[in-house]
Amino acid sequence: MNLPMEKSILDNRQQAIAALRERFGARLSTVSGVRDHHAKDESWHHPHRPDAVVFPESTEDVVEIVRICAAHQTPVVAYGTGTSLEGNVIPHLGGVVVDLERMNQVLRVSADDLDVTVQARVTRMQLNAHIKDSGLFFPIDPGADASIGGMAATRASGTNAVRYGTMRDNVLSLTVVLSDGRVVRTARRSRKSAAGYDLTRLFVGSEGTLGIITEVTLRLYGIPEAMAAAVCSFDSLEGAVNTVIQTIQLGIPVARIELLDEVQMNSLNRYSGMDHPVKNTLFIEFHGSNIGVKEQAETVQSLASDHGGAEFKWATQTEQRNALWKARHDVTYANKALRPGCEIWATDVCVPISRLAECILQTKEDLRQSFLTAPLVGHAGDGNFHLGFLIMRDDPAELAEAERLNERLVMRALAMDGTCTGEHGIGLGKRKYLLAEHGEAVSVMRQIKQVLDPHNLMNPGKIFPD
Amino acid sequence: MNLPMEKSILDNRQQAIAALRERFGARLSTVSGVRDHHAKDESWHHPHRPDAVVFPESTEDVVEIVRICAAHQTPVVAYGTGTSLEGNVIPHLGGVVVDLERMNQVLRVSADDLDVTVQARVTRMQLNAHIKDSGLFFPIDPGADASIGGMAATRASGTNAVRYGTMRDNVLSLTVVLSDGRVVRTARRSRKSAAGYDLTRLFVGSEGTLGIITEVTLRLYGIPEAMAAAVCSFDSLEGAVNTVIQTIQLGIPVARIELLDEVQMNSLNRYSGMDHPVKNTLFIEFHGSNIGVKEQAETVQSLASDHGGAEFKWATQTEQRNALWKARHDVTYANKALRPGCEIWATDVCVPISRLAECILQTKEDLRQSFLTAPLVGHAGDGNFHLGFLIMRDDPAELAEAERLNERLVMRALAMDGTCTGEHGIGLGKRKYLLAEHGEAVSVMRQIKQVLDPHNLMNPGKIFPD
Repeated sequence: MNLPMEKSILDNRQQAIAALRERFGARLSTVSGVRDHHAKDESWHHPHRPDAVVFPESTEDVVEIVRICAAHQTPVVAYGTGTSLEGNVIPHLGGVVVDLERMNQVLRVSADDLDVTVQARVTRMQLNAHIKDSGLFFPIDPGADASIGGMAATRASGTNAVRYGTMRDNVLSLTVVLSDGRVVRTARRSRKSAAGYDLTRLFVGSEGTLGIITEVTLRLYGIPEAMAAAVCSFDSLEGAVNTVIQTIQLGIPVARIELLDEVQMNSLNRYSGMDHPVKNTLFIEFHGSNIGVKEQAETVQSLASDHGGAEFKWATQTEQRNALWKARHDVTYANKALRPGCEIWATDVCVPISRLAECILQTKEDLRQSFLTAPLVGHAGDGNFHLGFLIMRDDPAELAEAERLNERLVMRALAMDGTCTGEHGIGLGKRKYLLAEHGEAVSVMRQIKQVLDPHNLMNPGKIFPD
Repeated sequence: MNLPMEKSILDNRQQAIAALRERFGARLSTVSGVRDHHAKDESWHHPHRPDAVVFPESTEDVVEIVRICAAHQTPVVAYGTGTSLEGNVIPHLGGVVVDLERMNQVLRVSADDLDVTVQARVTRMQLNAHIKDSGLFFPIDPGADASIGGMAATRASGTNAVRYGTMRDNVLSLTVVLSDGRVVRTARRSRKSAAGYDLTRLFVGSEGTLGIITEVTLRLYGIPEAMAAAVCSFDSLEGAVNTVIQTIQLGIPVARIELLDEVQMNSLNRYSGMDHPVKNTLFIEFHGSNIGVKEQAETVQSLASDHGGAEFKWATQTEQRNALWKARHDVTYANKALRPGCEIWATDVCVPISRLAECILQTKEDLRQSFLTAPLVGHAGDGNFHLGFLIMRDDPAELAEAERLNERLVMRALAMDGTCTGEHGIGLGKRKYLLAEHGEAVSVMRQIKQVLDPHNLMNPGKIFPD
């Protein structure tokens, strides 16, 4: 659904496209199918087609694209795998989408320094396949096989964040193309530095609104000696959540501790052909030495038993573990299958861990009283959880109800000193909550946006409310 | 040594001081002794007296101070404990020093969330004393009993950073007063967030040049079940450094792993009355469960033995451990005592761990050929090490030689893709290297400084080269 634009804007864009075509030839596309493909992400948000899509092969190509677009006041939206969940990459004001798919090279690996530099469109699975013989791995796992550049731009995290941190913690350095074509490298490769402002962290989570990330240097980790995953079902939601809270409070270094409610477990059993009890459930993973894993597992099993948890069902073989986490990652597809034709309105909040049980229980009560269904799944160890409302996008009543429930959820999290999004980003969907969360700090964010992108061409209209 | 100023500037400052005196009465001081006390830090840099010192008791007081100073174009320099090492808090252009000493309250502790909020002038030891009965501790330990606000402003780290990260990783949120009197809280208390730009990390490490930090929310950690420290001396520097490198590469979660060269060990033995072998030495600390600590220690002892390390000498009792780390933290005083009347020109760099041995050996060769003495000590697990040149500040030949050696050290670190400072900050001393390290990224830092402090009143002249 593209709305009519003023003629001067249209002229500008046509001039930008002509200049890009002259420079990039067949790597510039205005074909309908290509534009449609770049009109959407994995969210419920309405698609909007870009005017054109261009496929750079280098940072220098991106510089030229940005310069041409800037000369013609044309928006630029970077695109990785299109797996964002809040409309983050939807070019909702049109313009040029910069699809980085050809920037997919691992540029260097240093096993000795436990770091790697990749082009932005390398995906996390591609990276892990590339380094699998080095004894190292990259742990951040948002579920989708997202691009590293996109994960950095969204400040992604996922199941392993409770142990290994988020993209905030694991990006050592970025190469970024700014709105005026400047190229900056934000940091050196040393593990720490006190030399000047932390531009790395400024661009991590900026969702393409301050510049386009073209290269990323990441921390890597040694593959642990032992890894074991367990499933544990609980009689009550409180029991499951309180097990998580105590695990964190005791400092047990669990690698993953995921909460799935009974609605989610039912969906997952159906989709993945598993036969777990349809109860509130934790999926837990332990990493460490053989002794360490055993010690951690015994402690968490004991906590779980105190809270009405069943005996752990173990997945120690690699294939079993992979099957378990694949099922976990397939929740979106599983949930879509629950209601043919529906979209998933995915939302996420994050609260201080002491408030997690209260936040989830109040949210479940909201859902009990609603006509919408929304499985709940969460990176509970971080205080972070997700709802996925199963909606028909063209039904205004369903959209309104999802919006109402989402707003109640966000306001509840903010009242608990939490955040309106733990990992999906603001994108289009959470813009209206930015001010409620950050207050005066939004004025500082706007100043930074204004000074680095004075013509508002880099993924315009995202993050900030209109 | 204060130079003459233009009359208009002097008039402005006198007006600012008059307005501050009217508002703050006896909490504004222009007494010589008070100004002298705030003219210096613990570095070799030449002192410079502020025009006045003011003692706020609240964020609101700081807002008023900043507004008054802004109205009269008067520089504002925040002051914590004065323990910075690169002239970071020296008011070298004069103006008003804001001494936060009365803002020393722990505002809230949440044992359940493992976090705490403090006013900026709470020191790290004060904080740990305050929470000692909670079973929690705050690990970041730069040596000096620095203020939490100052540690955040400097992006401090220290001995525990190899395990627990730096201030970058452990600050959850800041309250900051900006140059125009706006007050921002940079984040909520949830462990992670993807909501907007990461202002927390922007202010961490900004050295007071973007605003004054008045409150800090920090992560806390459970006190480990077991803690044990060991001393291990080596026949060669390579042996010691390679033990560190392999420990990190194997992912052993050491809590501290500190390298002291034989010059430093001699100094430390004399000052602290210890009798360690005068050899290149590692001080190592292990945190974890009883089993975990034993497992880690056996692995590292085995690595050390492979590299010519002696048997570990253990310090397992709390008093023994404290004595060991007190000796480590006293290196500056120990080094001063080596040469009566001298100042310590402290410098630090940080390199990717694979280059650490090479960097240190080349640096030691420089020192061997120089007439200056400089003990070497380092947070080797981070690739971070320090030299302390023993200089007579009034001897131009010694200053020139220290500067020459420092420049060679910095350029060596940069050539290895490291940083000109791992933890001391840029302050006055490393300004000339900012561009060499960051290139075009400095232009972005300048834009941010310009937009948030357009009249250059917040700790002016720091970080950026003139």
